[in-house]
Amino acid sequence: MENISEAVIKRLPIYYRNICFMEAEGFEKITSQTLAERAGNTSTQVRQDFYMCGGIDNYSILSLKKRLCELLGIGNKYKMIVIGAGNLGRAIISYKDFENEGFFIEAAFDSNLTYEGMQINGIPIMNVKLLDKYLEDNEIDILIIATPAKAAEEIFKKAVAGNVKGIWNFAPVDLRSCDGVKVQNVHLNDSLLTLSFRINEKENY
Amino acid sequence: MENISEAVIKRLPIYYRNICFMEAEGFEKITSQTLAERAGNTSTQVRQDFYMCGGIDNYSILSLKKRLCELLGIGNKYKMIVIGAGNLGRAIISYKDFENEGFFIEAAFDSNLTYEGMQINGIPIMNVKLLDKYLEDNEIDILIIATPAKAAEEIFKKAVAGNVKGIWNFAPVDLRSCDGVKVQNVHLNDSLLTLSFRINEKENY
Repeated sequence: MENISEAVIKRLPIYYRNICFMEAEGFEKITSQTLAERAGNTSTQVRQDFYMCGGIDNYSILSLKKRLCELLGIGNKYKMIVIGAGNLGRAIISYKDFENEGFFIEAAFDSNLTYEGMQINGIPIMNVKLLDKYLEDNEIDILIIATPAKAAEEIFKKAVAGNVKGIWNFAPVDLRSCDGVKVQNVHLNDSLLTLSFRINEKENY
Repeated sequence: MENISEAVIKRLPIYYRNICFMEAEGFEKITSQTLAERAGNTSTQVRQDFYMCGGIDNYSILSLKKRLCELLGIGNKYKMIVIGAGNLGRAIISYKDFENEGFFIEAAFDSNLTYEGMQINGIPIMNVKLLDKYLEDNEIDILIIATPAKAAEEIFKKAVAGNVKGIWNFAPVDLRSCDGVKVQNVHLNDSLLTLSFRINEKENY
């Protein structure tokens, strides 16, 4: 298996999601054509992507799902914490679907002391001053940043010092992977601008 | 300008964002190499993407920004409404950065009547039963779905009937563009799985 490009990696979860839907619908086998239609690309692309992932050539739902789970690390258990217990942090904490794939939120942290001691869906909100100590005492896989932009850089440093494996960043800044810490930045604005491109598309041609 | 592929369209907002950062940092010109480093791809990719967009060959910040604004429809004014005033809906309503690019939230709707008459950041929350009438009376460009999955399909039909131009869907279902209504689905899970791929990458090779 060669180095897989960013574009391919981003398509794997889409394949995984659609294969799960099709499994739930009772399919046992699929074609690259069907999967492409669901995933919004072409059968050539699907076959190329699977070739890049070590030559998947068995299109039974079960074996495809097994291989994608291996690649995406689904089935492992990930411990996560959320920094920022505002609306976005709460939305993430309340979103239960992550748990189906093994991602569990253990605690939330905020600098707003009025939240201290509160719980959201059974998840305690702690004073962000306790974050360093918490990361020392607990092995956390993924730290989720749901703070304003200006706080993100400092939280990022604490996360790296605290030996997390990954950072899922929702603050509107670009954080870079480093020292074995992988970063995934979510820019909601990008997605909205993709939509406005589509809305304006006719005028663009 | 040929039909631009989905992958290119998704990179345009990333270029736009980084060009804005560089403008703020005082740059007047950039190279495809610098932009590629910031955007996390290659200079060949940047040049190819710009070629697809009608042959951008002037790498001054101002002309690049102008062309990307045209393509992405930035500078137009978009009226948006949010369906679902739970944590995610509130997070979206509170996120003020959209306004800088011309996206304005006018109202929110929810089926939970305890929210009725409340305001979030000055945005009124209305009974979702009033949605059809609201869409009849107001020209709304983008409808944002921040409801649970089971409500999304019905809201989608109302949005299409109400002649919105675009739907930005955060519910964990795949809605398809139709009848001139463009859909952008946001699957937060996909982004988390991209991160877990990266965390597990070493073991995959």
